[in-house]
Amino acid sequence: MQLRIPGPTPCPPEVLEAMGKQMVNHRGPEFINMMNDVTAKMKKVFQTRNDLFILTGAGTGGLEAVIVNMLSPGDEILSASIGVFGKRFADIAEAFGAKVKRLNFEWGKAIDTDVLRRELQNSPNVKAVLVTQNETSTGVTNDIKAVSAVIKEFNKLIIVDAVSGLGSIDFPVDEWKCDVVVTGSQKGWMIPPGLTMASVSEEGWKAHAEAKMPRFYWDFTKAKSFLEKGQTPWTPAVSQIYGLQVGLNMMLDEGLSNVFARHAKVAQMARDGVKALGLSLFADEKYASNTVTAVNVPENVEGSKLNKILREEFKVIIAGGQSNLTGKIFRIGHLGWVYEKDIEQVLDAISKALPKARS
Amino acid sequence: MQLRIPGPTPCPPEVLEAMGKQMVNHRGPEFINMMNDVTAKMKKVFQTRNDLFILTGAGTGGLEAVIVNMLSPGDEILSASIGVFGKRFADIAEAFGAKVKRLNFEWGKAIDTDVLRRELQNSPNVKAVLVTQNETSTGVTNDIKAVSAVIKEFNKLIIVDAVSGLGSIDFPVDEWKCDVVVTGSQKGWMIPPGLTMASVSEEGWKAHAEAKMPRFYWDFTKAKSFLEKGQTPWTPAVSQIYGLQVGLNMMLDEGLSNVFARHAKVAQMARDGVKALGLSLFADEKYASNTVTAVNVPENVEGSKLNKILREEFKVIIAGGQSNLTGKIFRIGHLGWVYEKDIEQVLDAISKALPKARS
Repeated sequence: MQLRIPGPTPCPPEVLEAMGKQMVNHRGPEFINMMNDVTAKMKKVFQTRNDLFILTGAGTGGLEAVIVNMLSPGDEILSASIGVFGKRFADIAEAFGAKVKRLNFEWGKAIDTDVLRRELQNSPNVKAVLVTQNETSTGVTNDIKAVSAVIKEFNKLIIVDAVSGLGSIDFPVDEWKCDVVVTGSQKGWMIPPGLTMASVSEEGWKAHAEAKMPRFYWDFTKAKSFLEKGQTPWTPAVSQIYGLQVGLNMMLDEGLSNVFARHAKVAQMARDGVKALGLSLFADEKYASNTVTAVNVPENVEGSKLNKILREEFKVIIAGGQSNLTGKIFRIGHLGWVYEKDIEQVLDAISKALPKARS
Repeated sequence: MQLRIPGPTPCPPEVLEAMGKQMVNHRGPEFINMMNDVTAKMKKVFQTRNDLFILTGAGTGGLEAVIVNMLSPGDEILSASIGVFGKRFADIAEAFGAKVKRLNFEWGKAIDTDVLRRELQNSPNVKAVLVTQNETSTGVTNDIKAVSAVIKEFNKLIIVDAVSGLGSIDFPVDEWKCDVVVTGSQKGWMIPPGLTMASVSEEGWKAHAEAKMPRFYWDFTKAKSFLEKGQTPWTPAVSQIYGLQVGLNMMLDEGLSNVFARHAKVAQMARDGVKALGLSLFADEKYASNTVTAVNVPENVEGSKLNKILREEFKVIIAGGQSNLTGKIFRIGHLGWVYEKDIEQVLDAISKALPKARS
């Protein structure tokens, strides 16, 4: 089985072995040692000295966590969205009472920093800006360095959904002055879903101190006070933390720059490969993501039929399109535990499945 | 290692093997079949025909989920609390803006239904009552059948924290007319932490339709619409669902009444055993829990030293006391994958460790 969706991603056997380890006391010394080790190593991948929390939940839980910890009902914020997950981030903020100005960019493109700057010039009351590092729905990566620089011209808080990019695409959180950054375990981290991780800068803590959105489970003050003891406020997904320790060791052994280069290489291979099959990329190649490639479903091909043939006849699992893109694109995930041979297999399967999927 | 805390509980090897299975597409047919199977089997253990959701998060996340899905800010509710987790449930409701009347019973005792009835007679505006099936901090089980009957005399919504009891202690949710019931994976279910499950009655759905507390991640409307397709709104903790399928099969193969009888037997053995060692039980034995036994730390013994000796010399892990009970009690968890030989080992270790722990 070749699982090539943008998460859950396949896990290396070492991680799966760790997932099967017996439980320990989450208040005992073995767990505390592991939690401290994993937190320190994850900070290396975030390239941050900020506080970093590992929370039990899906990536969307992490998005909710950073919203409710940083904002108050009635706060005016700006959402710079380039797809489904950008919209979701804004929807969460709105659900908790933020006044969200929605700056939506064309799907398939990245944030235009000139447009963002103009919007911020006209938005003196905006408290924070929500951005997506890597938009899983369109296969686009924003230039977070440039985006953050614009946001910091106005001294606004920047909150980044880095769920499907961090750990796979270089993102030096401190150097790029990103206040709050959130990711999810089932993406580049090579472990199963169940954990979401968030870093909080000094500016982030100032915002947190004033933030009045109701919260309990996701509360960072509670997370911080427990992490000082190497613990979590609530019983964590212990198995995923076992897996994470193994996954992080593998990433750091490989070397971060090698991990990023590997992702860039397999992504280029995926893009070149689909084009060689006569297919076209959905995203503007300037911004093409190194973790997920979105491909236009050609005319005369039924997207769902293609995915079904790939799954049933070739054991290759790819993703369809989401929201307005349902049936219009398919997506190949290439993040985490992924090598050139995997992309070769996917491309070979697509080349054979395409003729069979013509309607 | 003999892990005898009230969660995480040890997992059978079959469950651990399932935890190590490779990822699948959470929108694909294998997952959908598994999700439908697991949901149906879990309803059997809940003894309910109500909707039931499996959410990714800790038990406290499940408590937050049922609060934000059922209530509005400003709603007056009654908390009938018998310990740390009863207080936590009320704290969550308060954090989200409910006006909480706190009816606190003496720790070590259960809810007095006469007192509860008087309180409800004086509380015409109360919309819902929060109760704990099994209070992990004191080792007390409420008589939920009687408690629910009183609450239903007043036609109030009953929301039950059954995190550490359901699946181990008989709790026929429908027969006892409990509207909203929530549990957690790392307790009687014999699987690692990471999932929380909640059932919702017709009355619960009516409350949900009016409930205005902000929510996104935990939203039951979203959970219901996805469950109709055998899916979850956000990427679930797939590994725990693998484990849950195995755990539920084991429970149903053993037979629910046998599972409950086994818990009653090992609990009686634990209580008898500690008394035979000259120790006294913290909880009134009338209400003693079949999943966790709280034992008074005798004079001249240091609780933390006892736990340390048990861990280091005997490989037996027990829990200390929480909140005001820190240092005053220790707790033996006996829920999930637990048999008489486990309790024998614990009692033997305690008998040997006690003399060494005298201060």
